[in-house]
Amino acid sequence: MAETHDIPVTPSDALLRRGEGLAAWRQIADTLAEEIGRGALAAGSQIPTEAALSGRFGVNRHTVRRALAALAERGLVRATQGRGTFVEQAPLPYPIGPRTRFSETVSRAGREAWGDLLASRVLPADAETAEALGLAPGAPVIEMLTRHRADDTPLSTARTCLPLPRFAGFEAAYGRLGSITRAFADFGVDDYTRLSTRVGARAASAEEAIRLDVAPGRPLLTVTSVNIDGQGMRIQATQSLFSADRVELILE
Amino acid sequence: MAETHDIPVTPSDALLRRGEGLAAWRQIADTLAEEIGRGALAAGSQIPTEAALSGRFGVNRHTVRRALAALAERGLVRATQGRGTFVEQAPLPYPIGPRTRFSETVSRAGREAWGDLLASRVLPADAETAEALGLAPGAPVIEMLTRHRADDTPLSTARTCLPLPRFAGFEAAYGRLGSITRAFADFGVDDYTRLSTRVGARAASAEEAIRLDVAPGRPLLTVTSVNIDGQGMRIQATQSLFSADRVELILE
Repeated sequence: MAETHDIPVTPSDALLRRGEGLAAWRQIADTLAEEIGRGALAAGSQIPTEAALSGRFGVNRHTVRRALAALAERGLVRATQGRGTFVEQAPLPYPIGPRTRFSETVSRAGREAWGDLLASRVLPADAETAEALGLAPGAPVIEMLTRHRADDTPLSTARTCLPLPRFAGFEAAYGRLGSITRAFADFGVDDYTRLSTRVGARAASAEEAIRLDVAPGRPLLTVTSVNIDGQGMRIQATQSLFSADRVELILE
Repeated sequence: MAETHDIPVTPSDALLRRGEGLAAWRQIADTLAEEIGRGALAAGSQIPTEAALSGRFGVNRHTVRRALAALAERGLVRATQGRGTFVEQAPLPYPIGPRTRFSETVSRAGREAWGDLLASRVLPADAETAEALGLAPGAPVIEMLTRHRADDTPLSTARTCLPLPRFAGFEAAYGRLGSITRAFADFGVDDYTRLSTRVGARAASAEEAIRLDVAPGRPLLTVTSVNIDGQGMRIQATQSLFSADRVELILE
């Protein structure tokens, strides 16, 4: 169970600088941001309940909620449905190189890796996907929409295309195994390497924000990549969106 | 001289969908965004003057300015002081690898590269810089604040530290030569390679936005790197901020 912090209420906390032109919710957000900055509210820990913060600062819950929303917009906390609000962890160092493996990277950090299959379909490859996979435009591919978590925290979401008929049924294997590496092994691909990687950045759309559990507009790293099997065949074209609040790429 | 577009005024342009709940400036921004999207307003070209747009859409200049500001916030156009507003170019592919060279990359794209020295000082290395350069904390370093342009467009701004006494006077060489590679050559370093690179993303602060000529809050790629000379000595620790609207990193 996550522990909550029991910060003693001091008289000065309840006496916000009212009438000084700074809204109460902003003063509360600044106070909590400062406590996160110096580690009094530790990375990964749960922050006090709305009721506790209302009492501490002498304001109503609406004001507390507004302060917490402001901290989420700044990427400092993350609200989880039904479980409370947590201080964001320091970004996870994520090696990108010839052998990039989500599961290994997350496991090495002592966290549990899992990939959720959100949706999948078979469709004709668009021009960009066909070029990435070395196929004729319109050739059939499987497209999977996935989300990748470390414990319960989403780190990235991705759109992945694989050529057919070779990988027919891949989405079922992925859904069962929760890992590209394990699903490839299920299809007899015991090793694969990175052919190309491009990295950009942009703000999260409303839909991406929901999928990644970040505030809309938070920065994302866009990683566009192609993987090949041991024979040099192109087997996977992916665009991943990493939360830049939670991941830092380490180039290898 | 940049050419301006002469898009014919059609009656429908002047008849914005007034009263339909969408502000005129937003309708104008959407129309121009659509024209940029399909290339009717080409990447790199100047968009029509405020006066021309006022006439085309039948609105006052204040409304046009608001529409252009909205396009800048979306990273679609860039306002330059005194020279008008330009459609953003497609992001420049920027190779990041063992031999990363700003000047070569920009020149290969047919554009002129230049680095501006914005400020420099000598100071004791902080813990992070000392570790990056393999120095004792507090050892003296030169710190340079620079901006890197392709033609007149800023692509990145950087904070670079170099060890003293070896690179005493480096900032003067850089200011004269406009390139790290040429300044290193001036100090007898004919080759250097990348030891490590980390990549993240965040929104531009107000000050960074001014330096890079982007709207505040636009996405930046943060590239933290260390370079070594031919003997393996650490000679440069840099944090670069690239406009993600203008640059895409290609991992090598």
